[in-house]
Amino acid sequence: MEEIIQTREISVGVVGLGLMGSSIVAALLLAGHPVKAIAPLPTELADAPDRILSQIRHADEADLLAQAPDAYIAQLTVSADYGVLADCRLVLECVTEKIAIKQIVYQKIAAVVSSETVIASNTSAIPISMLQQLVPNPERFLGIHWAEPAYMTRFMEITCGTQTSLERANWAFELAHYWQKEPTLLRKDIRGFVTNRLMYAIYREGLHLVEKGDATLEDVDKAFRYDAGSWITMMGIFRRMDYTGLQDYPEIFRRIFPLLSNSDEVPDLMQQLVDRQLRGTQSAQGLYDYTEEEAKEWDKAFAVFNKDIYQLAARYPFRTDQRIG
Amino acid sequence: MEEIIQTREISVGVVGLGLMGSSIVAALLLAGHPVKAIAPLPTELADAPDRILSQIRHADEADLLAQAPDAYIAQLTVSADYGVLADCRLVLECVTEKIAIKQIVYQKIAAVVSSETVIASNTSAIPISMLQQLVPNPERFLGIHWAEPAYMTRFMEITCGTQTSLERANWAFELAHYWQKEPTLLRKDIRGFVTNRLMYAIYREGLHLVEKGDATLEDVDKAFRYDAGSWITMMGIFRRMDYTGLQDYPEIFRRIFPLLSNSDEVPDLMQQLVDRQLRGTQSAQGLYDYTEEEAKEWDKAFAVFNKDIYQLAARYPFRTDQRIG
Repeated sequence: MEEIIQTREISVGVVGLGLMGSSIVAALLLAGHPVKAIAPLPTELADAPDRILSQIRHADEADLLAQAPDAYIAQLTVSADYGVLADCRLVLECVTEKIAIKQIVYQKIAAVVSSETVIASNTSAIPISMLQQLVPNPERFLGIHWAEPAYMTRFMEITCGTQTSLERANWAFELAHYWQKEPTLLRKDIRGFVTNRLMYAIYREGLHLVEKGDATLEDVDKAFRYDAGSWITMMGIFRRMDYTGLQDYPEIFRRIFPLLSNSDEVPDLMQQLVDRQLRGTQSAQGLYDYTEEEAKEWDKAFAVFNKDIYQLAARYPFRTDQRIG
Repeated sequence: MEEIIQTREISVGVVGLGLMGSSIVAALLLAGHPVKAIAPLPTELADAPDRILSQIRHADEADLLAQAPDAYIAQLTVSADYGVLADCRLVLECVTEKIAIKQIVYQKIAAVVSSETVIASNTSAIPISMLQQLVPNPERFLGIHWAEPAYMTRFMEITCGTQTSLERANWAFELAHYWQKEPTLLRKDIRGFVTNRLMYAIYREGLHLVEKGDATLEDVDKAFRYDAGSWITMMGIFRRMDYTGLQDYPEIFRRIFPLLSNSDEVPDLMQQLVDRQLRGTQSAQGLYDYTEEEAKEWDKAFAVFNKDIYQLAARYPFRTDQRIG
């Protein structure tokens, strides 16, 4: 007979402690879980504890903590040994987007956990139904897609593969609410997920305008930052349509859809930057150019902004689950 | 010899006092201009003064006023008579998106103002180069596209038509900075403008996912609200790419671009709502369903949110005008 335990007592495993993995560990600790964090890379093993601590302090500055930071850290185990995952009911995989590497990771996880343990990937690029085939007992596998920083964003996309048990998906959906997320549950395995599809539709059009010389990077960023940026945190795109009265849209669709880029190609502009190994603010060169100080300033400013926008969004908790039947 | 006057002493005309026109009048009054507001419709003549006053009070609540509301209102003339525009150096047209109506309006404006007076349209749907042909002395005609509410958003898109004098466009660009906007100046007449192109790329993809049954309206709104909504007010889309390190994008472009909707068609879902004359929160029925109270609640909440996000955005004034040459 299974012992009844509190949700916060559920041990959760995280495999892969890069930027995103560490941030997910912080989110799970803040939710009260004991967290077993596996660092497959030696650099991650060395860096992760400090990074996780500084993330918890960041959350503390935003008044998100009920206890002192140490109380959360006490629940953390960091190890290179998959054996510590043994008692986890959920293990989140956050390693690089390479299928061969993920396959090895899934085998190592499955070798130590119960066949009931839910295994989830944070992938935003590879179909869940494909990854699922690499996991023993595939019905317990699904996608749980977080936004960075995981401990201070409400976004969460839960995606079923074709073999995922709906019961497990619902369990994860409930758990996401316990984590104070605003999850979406996609019962079908949509290639590209929802948020990526929307974002890449913008990226395609924005890069198209820049490559044609119709607008500069700055124009596109300004337009989006000061237009969509003035309402999207509260509304989403369809609520905005309702708010603006709906009637004008079909006429504008008719005029604008035929003008939009339908390209399948990777824009040269992007390919060249990536070929040159530029990493944006992380290397102080990318689409924009930065001094070392400017690059750091952006990173710091975003940490502060994130706290601000998280708190602002919390004041507008409107439910979006009412619609015409 | 022309008298030298202060920028704030420039009289500005606004023709069309619907929701957007009234809001633009409020923005111009707050900038200190004498404003000549023309109400072509009797209902607008009756409703506009109260609406403008309540918008100025709204701005007052957000601490945007240097003087008492009455001091701004004292600078306002509302009339059905185009003759009051005579001394304006700039006239903004904000009437309905019908070319035949705009043509009549331009003739009435041109009949009373100097041939030097800049005439601008707030259109977001009709090419500036086309409208320009309807205006005597077309070199003084351009697009000035505002975001709602005009007195509390920083977005502004200034668009040249093929015949627009660059000198006039630069004058408008300077003036926009005086209005505390973050304007973009598009020297080419891009059909669909920048912000519309980006937004309609999202609308196309979002409606496509909903019509295919891959996601619900709520899923799309949640994903966008809690993902993009957690950074876009600060970053814009290209700055975000730099911030996230650039390297993964080409691979994801390659996977996702071929999946995106390339449709030219107006989605049935939208056409049906519009055929049924639904107007979203304005009629308490649209993509979502509302009770009368809920619809009002959204309107009220957005007025408050707008103040919050305007103030938040003001704390992150990073310039976006640095880039690789």
